[in-house]
Amino acid sequence: MGRWEPGAPGRLQQAAIELFAERGFDATTVADIADRAGVTERTFFRHYADKREVLFAGEAQLQAAFVDAVVQAPAHSSAIELVSTALETGCRALQDARGPEFPRIRSAIIAANQALQERELLKMSHLTGVLAEAMVAHGLGVLPARLAAELVVSVFITSFGSWIEVGETRDLVTIQRETLEVFLTLAR
Amino acid sequence: MGRWEPGAPGRLQQAAIELFAERGFDATTVADIADRAGVTERTFFRHYADKREVLFAGEAQLQAAFVDAVVQAPAHSSAIELVSTALETGCRALQDARGPEFPRIRSAIIAANQALQERELLKMSHLTGVLAEAMVAHGLGVLPARLAAELVVSVFITSFGSWIEVGETRDLVTIQRETLEVFLTLAR
Repeated sequence: MGRWEPGAPGRLQQAAIELFAERGFDATTVADIADRAGVTERTFFRHYADKREVLFAGEAQLQAAFVDAVVQAPAHSSAIELVSTALETGCRALQDARGPEFPRIRSAIIAANQALQERELLKMSHLTGVLAEAMVAHGLGVLPARLAAELVVSVFITSFGSWIEVGETRDLVTIQRETLEVFLTLAR
Repeated sequence: MGRWEPGAPGRLQQAAIELFAERGFDATTVADIADRAGVTERTFFRHYADKREVLFAGEAQLQAAFVDAVVQAPAHSSAIELVSTALETGCRALQDARGPEFPRIRSAIIAANQALQERELLKMSHLTGVLAEAMVAHGLGVLPARLAAELVVSVFITSFGSWIEVGETRDLVTIQRETLEVFLTLAR
């Protein structure tokens, strides 16, 4: 089998994070990104609204992975069972999409720019909101659903931070399981 | 005793949220706010960098209330004891500063504007960061400290949301205690 050849969206993402890392986010233009990816600017704008959105591609799929796990959980699952299945499925989707190198570079770019940090936080806030709704639809009360959704996102953010650390060898699903366990031990 | 007369910062905050609520954030100028508060624009800029920052006044004091509670907690406090004392002290500081009416109007203004939402999320993210540092300094491991700080902020955001609901009669400290208890029951 030949090497996997990414399509235009994947090439644009790779080109964008390379350029953002080399030159900084502000100094990079859409024309630079399209040029590095070997496509036209018109192709860029078929896939992304602007250069910022290249960094947030895949947001809808990640959200869907977390939410679908809750939707498909067995009836009468406890709040912690819903938390666990959402984390397991969401983290597996992310780690199967690609290894930690791309997210590591992306996170460094975001950490260097306040507007990008705010956009990332809004993404996590939206994830909390849709997870809470899914948990209410699954039968939890409004308050337990909100708290369970907050727990999913807290453990996800913390696990993700560990996963992209240089020298970390565990996969994201393993880290997430261990992090949730540490959390539940604290709470007991 | 006469009625409490707020100083210029308090009058500017009150004028700002009234105007933002009446006209929208974007349509309100610093000149409008200064005029409504009965001060000059120069006085406005002695207290606030721009009209957005009027909505985020008190951020440092609130952060300090949460963090000081952790710093002053007895040695060998458990993670949950640190979480509880931080929430208790932070929520008391907020409810003693003023009742829920101002925060209710402020929250509606923020909910209507994505840039303000992002700024608010950054504020909560900073609070999580400084709380995690304080918990490490108090003796928790890095991972438990991070998770405990995430729990404080999750319970705070959730309790705050309940507190400012129309018809809510409990005070913020009571709501926070009940919310943390619901959370710990879920986790057990």
